[in-house]
Amino acid sequence: MTLPAPARIGMPIAEVDTPALLLDLDAFEHNLDTLDRTLAGRMVRIRPHAKSHKCPRIALIQMQRGAVGVCCQKVSEAEALVDGGVTDVMVSNEVVGAQKLSKLAALARRARISVLADHPDAVDALARAAHEAGVTLDVLVEVDVGAGRCGTAPGEPAAVLAAHIAGKPELRFRGIHAYQGGAQHLRTPEERKAAIRSAIDQVSATLAALQSRGLAADIVTGAGTGTYLLEAASGVYNEIQPGSYIFMDADYGRNLAADGQPMRTFQHSLFVLATVMSRPTPQRAVVDAGLKAHSVDSGNPLVADIPGATFVRASDEHGAIELASPDLLPLGSKLKLIPGHCDPTVNLYDWLVCVRNDVVEDIWPISARGAFY
Amino acid sequence: MTLPAPARIGMPIAEVDTPALLLDLDAFEHNLDTLDRTLAGRMVRIRPHAKSHKCPRIALIQMQRGAVGVCCQKVSEAEALVDGGVTDVMVSNEVVGAQKLSKLAALARRARISVLADHPDAVDALARAAHEAGVTLDVLVEVDVGAGRCGTAPGEPAAVLAAHIAGKPELRFRGIHAYQGGAQHLRTPEERKAAIRSAIDQVSATLAALQSRGLAADIVTGAGTGTYLLEAASGVYNEIQPGSYIFMDADYGRNLAADGQPMRTFQHSLFVLATVMSRPTPQRAVVDAGLKAHSVDSGNPLVADIPGATFVRASDEHGAIELASPDLLPLGSKLKLIPGHCDPTVNLYDWLVCVRNDVVEDIWPISARGAFY
Repeated sequence: MTLPAPARIGMPIAEVDTPALLLDLDAFEHNLDTLDRTLAGRMVRIRPHAKSHKCPRIALIQMQRGAVGVCCQKVSEAEALVDGGVTDVMVSNEVVGAQKLSKLAALARRARISVLADHPDAVDALARAAHEAGVTLDVLVEVDVGAGRCGTAPGEPAAVLAAHIAGKPELRFRGIHAYQGGAQHLRTPEERKAAIRSAIDQVSATLAALQSRGLAADIVTGAGTGTYLLEAASGVYNEIQPGSYIFMDADYGRNLAADGQPMRTFQHSLFVLATVMSRPTPQRAVVDAGLKAHSVDSGNPLVADIPGATFVRASDEHGAIELASPDLLPLGSKLKLIPGHCDPTVNLYDWLVCVRNDVVEDIWPISARGAFY
Repeated sequence: MTLPAPARIGMPIAEVDTPALLLDLDAFEHNLDTLDRTLAGRMVRIRPHAKSHKCPRIALIQMQRGAVGVCCQKVSEAEALVDGGVTDVMVSNEVVGAQKLSKLAALARRARISVLADHPDAVDALARAAHEAGVTLDVLVEVDVGAGRCGTAPGEPAAVLAAHIAGKPELRFRGIHAYQGGAQHLRTPEERKAAIRSAIDQVSATLAALQSRGLAADIVTGAGTGTYLLEAASGVYNEIQPGSYIFMDADYGRNLAADGQPMRTFQHSLFVLATVMSRPTPQRAVVDAGLKAHSVDSGNPLVADIPGATFVRASDEHGAIELASPDLLPLGSKLKLIPGHCDPTVNLYDWLVCVRNDVVEDIWPISARGAFY
């Protein structure tokens, strides 16, 4: 079920088959540099989120630059990363189900593995799986600091669960996971600051509750591309886990900076290369990249570098583009789309075609594509 | 990049790893029977759309029941189907680009292949590719009968392009493709009837224009799950290409019948099996199936068989479910989601886990998963 890559190394972009997922290496490296630069002097470890790229090659590049490891969301994703040489993976998610737990515990023999919990029954199951595999698992309590998804309530409930973990000989209580996912795409800096200020307060309350039980959180982790500077400056978070910063996407591009303009900290490095396969009217081009080539859950993709061309509608295999001028985008021309949402878009592709100066420089397998178990 | 299947034959559903794509075989067979039954006495060929299932096993079942072949949308998808034993594939789409054309022409040596065109330059390129491969390609003119996507205008413009095709020794003009995609999900029968009545008029005008040039359309093809009975009764369409009827999805389930109630012609046979991985509050369950496990472009999935459980929000790897009662969906329980939109959901999976009476009866590879070239 894996097709050959749509490109060969050395090929000009113009010859790459479409749809193809392109990584602009100059922009990607700019983004890696920018993360480091903006964190200079901050006492936080970086553990980027690999759910965005699902690519061991990128994880290793991030670790070569000082990341302590990576996060991912699924056990099978962690397996693909460890198979690709990654030595430290936090499954920043609850793991529930016998098969998954058995695989997770087995993986802990091959790499440093940590995982989250937000329920005592799940802790008991983790301990059983670790016992059966003869390993000790690092476990963090997930605390809901405003995202409203998983996690215990902050403060005492989190401390109660931490004590439950600490009481299991097969588990090590390592700290708390406090990711405010809902804050990442709040549009103004004021909204993001308010959300993270509240998260920090809840983290502090949780740390106090832990302390009153004699428990210490070695790791306080969270943060995403939209807010990581706030957590890094908080004095309570000591690990951050941005993921999308390496790619950016159209939706992150709508976050605003303090000057009211779109934030331009990171550059768009991820594109879907598409071909104009129909020019049915002077105002419409249709490209060969629809819902199976990019995810529209956070809005349509943007057309890169072609003012007057607007992506207006995706169907399964087609994208309709409205044109301000009939001379734009003739039949057969290629164009780059900036995906609306990078993570689920990357998950549609087996290969990342790495380009620089419009030439294919490398091709990286997206080894954890479809790894959702 | 292909993970092992999440199930084994003979396994009870309760043991299947999640997320998994389930096919309920009783409902699937009901749907196959229903299509045949509702078309009894109609003089139309059935060429189901394989873009929905991407699975040669299903294509062969459809052909064993009398389908003349299948449609698909991409050359690489056609390759996967032919590799799986399918002998007649219409690429019901324009094919533009040298690599794709060369593969399409090569495929015509191994199976009966037809393709669409809506532009004279594309016709010229098809002829060149056929010439280079030493094959003759069957080509249909795509006519826009209201969908507003690809296609020539009906009537004279379509006839002009047909004559262009007919003038190429390497191509055979076979007919017209007149799919009114925009009509499939119109909610009331009156709206669907009006849209298809208009499409039929435009097809008739096109056939008249062809006739005045001495050209005959052997094939007049179109229709989808929402409208196929109308095209089948039209007297002008002689081939229909429904796809989703085998699966249904939440969005098709919102189409209404003449009595104002949701249409129940076909049953939901396609489900995403998910596990409750977090129960953070009495009113919320979180499942392990988010944007990477089902497509929300046509709305959220529905929770099957559990009144009071409503899927309210998907993030990358999570689905949040609101519960009317705290006793519903305890941690670790499994549930079936009815995807919002079947086609892009199927494209996320490598395996279709076929179940009957809650036991895994077979596992079919989704061989054309990710085949978007």
